[in-house]
Amino acid sequence: MAKNKGISGFPEWLPAEKKLEDAVIAKIKRIYESHGFTPIETPAVELLETLSSKGEINKEIYAVQRLAAQSDSEPELGLHFDLTVPFARYVAMHFNELVFPFKRYQLQKSWRGERPQKGRFREFYQFDVDIVSRDELPLCCDAEVVTVLAKGLLALNIGTPCLELNNRKLLLGYFSGLGLSDDIARQAISVIDKLDKIGESEAAQQIEALSVSSSARDRILEFVAPIVSLDQLASVLSQVSLNSAMAEEGAEELLTVASLIPKSVRDHIVVRFQIARGLDYYTGTIVESKITEFPEFGSFGSGGRYEDLVSKYLSKNVPGVGISIGLTRLMDLIIREKLLPLPQLSSARVLVTVLNEEVRKEAEEFAEALRVDGVSCEVFFRSPKLGKQIDYADKKGIPFVVFLDAENSVKNIQTGEQVSFTDLASLKRIVCTEDLQ
Amino acid sequence: MAKNKGISGFPEWLPAEKKLEDAVIAKIKRIYESHGFTPIETPAVELLETLSSKGEINKEIYAVQRLAAQSDSEPELGLHFDLTVPFARYVAMHFNELVFPFKRYQLQKSWRGERPQKGRFREFYQFDVDIVSRDELPLCCDAEVVTVLAKGLLALNIGTPCLELNNRKLLLGYFSGLGLSDDIARQAISVIDKLDKIGESEAAQQIEALSVSSSARDRILEFVAPIVSLDQLASVLSQVSLNSAMAEEGAEELLTVASLIPKSVRDHIVVRFQIARGLDYYTGTIVESKITEFPEFGSFGSGGRYEDLVSKYLSKNVPGVGISIGLTRLMDLIIREKLLPLPQLSSARVLVTVLNEEVRKEAEEFAEALRVDGVSCEVFFRSPKLGKQIDYADKKGIPFVVFLDAENSVKNIQTGEQVSFTDLASLKRIVCTEDLQ
Repeated sequence: MAKNKGISGFPEWLPAEKKLEDAVIAKIKRIYESHGFTPIETPAVELLETLSSKGEINKEIYAVQRLAAQSDSEPELGLHFDLTVPFARYVAMHFNELVFPFKRYQLQKSWRGERPQKGRFREFYQFDVDIVSRDELPLCCDAEVVTVLAKGLLALNIGTPCLELNNRKLLLGYFSGLGLSDDIARQAISVIDKLDKIGESEAAQQIEALSVSSSARDRILEFVAPIVSLDQLASVLSQVSLNSAMAEEGAEELLTVASLIPKSVRDHIVVRFQIARGLDYYTGTIVESKITEFPEFGSFGSGGRYEDLVSKYLSKNVPGVGISIGLTRLMDLIIREKLLPLPQLSSARVLVTVLNEEVRKEAEEFAEALRVDGVSCEVFFRSPKLGKQIDYADKKGIPFVVFLDAENSVKNIQTGEQVSFTDLASLKRIVCTEDLQ
Repeated sequence: MAKNKGISGFPEWLPAEKKLEDAVIAKIKRIYESHGFTPIETPAVELLETLSSKGEINKEIYAVQRLAAQSDSEPELGLHFDLTVPFARYVAMHFNELVFPFKRYQLQKSWRGERPQKGRFREFYQFDVDIVSRDELPLCCDAEVVTVLAKGLLALNIGTPCLELNNRKLLLGYFSGLGLSDDIARQAISVIDKLDKIGESEAAQQIEALSVSSSARDRILEFVAPIVSLDQLASVLSQVSLNSAMAEEGAEELLTVASLIPKSVRDHIVVRFQIARGLDYYTGTIVESKITEFPEFGSFGSGGRYEDLVSKYLSKNVPGVGISIGLTRLMDLIIREKLLPLPQLSSARVLVTVLNEEVRKEAEEFAEALRVDGVSCEVFFRSPKLGKQIDYADKKGIPFVVFLDAENSVKNIQTGEQVSFTDLASLKRIVCTEDLQ
């Protein structure tokens, strides 16, 4: 017999769990669409050349090659490892057919050949939004993607989202203002980015090891320590001596973004100066997010501002800002911790029972008439004792069972209440009560 | 500069086309759910062992391997080439956690390294439904998946779907009854399956070449010629001498399935005895589908009955019946032939214009209040002359533009009509008129 076990790092859900994932996707999608983002989808594969960065190809990329290909031929295709690289290639390729600012959302799987571990997968859904434009992209776009991330997480109703906002220019500029060279400043930022994990004394040691003076080290640790509400930001920044034009610019950007976050999500966003999000990619706004009830889980969604999307392909200046929600990680937590109830397996409101095979045709026509009238339903596939048929409805979460005989009747499985009905309209009224929809 | 061209056989759509695809998916999904089918999703990859059939691995499968893997190591994973093989592995793996009859739908991409051509892709979506059960699966399930295929195609409103129904036992049994050996009968079926393409005289020659007597050949060609409405089926079959128990069984099955097709779709289904759908897989009911207006396009969706889903993995008897809609082929036709209008790029009902950057914060809060109230909207990202902002709304298909000033007003872009509004509720009434929803 062939193996039927799963492949490590490639999760799959049971039917009710998949249905829950679809519901979660629908909630996030509704938020994205309510802001006018438009969907795109790219193939699962890109040319390996497209997936390379500065000529380097990450060895954790999955290469894709027909089995029929010569065994000595080099693969040319790979599965994408995020949605940003395919998005960049897409924008370059369709540049003249897009409306700018281009606001897109994208829900697709990505693949990374990393070691699987709790909450980390080799195949995983990401759900991204980005806004890109030509030449210049104002900061209201940063505020919009941050807002959309907050609203997306809030819509899930699985705890209290907290977004942490920062600005790379502020961080890099502040460190430069303390006399750190660009290279040392970037290394110090890497240390700061790990502060939550390694703790302050370990961070202090690692910064000292970069030959940073102890006074600069202390000022760095003091600067990055506070967590600041959006409304306090101006006052906190006014008390810090920034000492560099870049830091001033970053502070100004952060204040502008903070000012444009609407009331509906302001309470869920703070500024935290120790957020850095890696080194090379982001150039201004950066954001991470937590669910307060699961502090150890890491970020559910993150992103930021980048100054250059398509220069690898086109001599155009296309800055952008975007966020990515780690949907599979999120679903894994939701399922494991039972944060949301599993939906009923069947979308049917009604199971039409079948007394015997002679009346099956009638039952099928009845069910189809119900569906045409907008009521989802199933017909039991055999005609055993009614108890067995009711059991099936119960297992699939179908709330009502219909019996077609001399006196047509419908039974609410949960309450046990059974009433007769005269026609489709009266049945529809019974099974489509508002509190159950 | 890196290439930014697409990869042959790996289609991607422009944003409005993708939005149309999502709308098409939603329509088919609604039909599937109205019959109580439940979604599942499997990883893109399976073990190559799982993808093999009788120990043979199709060379057109795409193997997947980390670039970091030793170059002399054999790949173990491949992208699935259909949704049936992953479904079989899924059912075997989760057998004790599923409710039987298990009615599932599955929308995923598959990959085949075939030569790309018009309407044939290397990466493509399939949208499948199957019903499987333990030990025995009654014929009402065949009728249900055929019905669901017809309803799915009808829901798209892109022409007149016509489903062609047949039964493998009837075909094989009829040929056996004429004295053809099992092997020759199967070869003759392959010829019949191509009748539409090769024509009757070529088919006659190919059947003769199988050493079939000319009288048997004539009876075969006569038998497979008619196209029969469901209501005429009994009368047509009663005039044919079937000459074998297998043919009688197939005829009985076909009659039962035909009798259970509901009125709502009966006019879109015929029986056509020359439909065979390949050789080894299907064992009873088979179905193909056309859109009458595009006869040259081939089948939009097809499927049939199989007796054995999981025996490769489990010593269980799991018969099933299912259909698969070739979604990417369908979308390619819809887009190429403009069979459906492209949706507006933005889901927003309203663009909130921004007179100058001083009032941006107010505009953003206004827009967010609208969204909280259920009205999707965008805020223009800069504050150029209003004409430019209205142009953007026009390009993105946003029907209304709002101006916030001393007298707040809203303009219908298409009619040019502009009226003032006093509060959110009155604006909502204007922009969410029923005929535009």
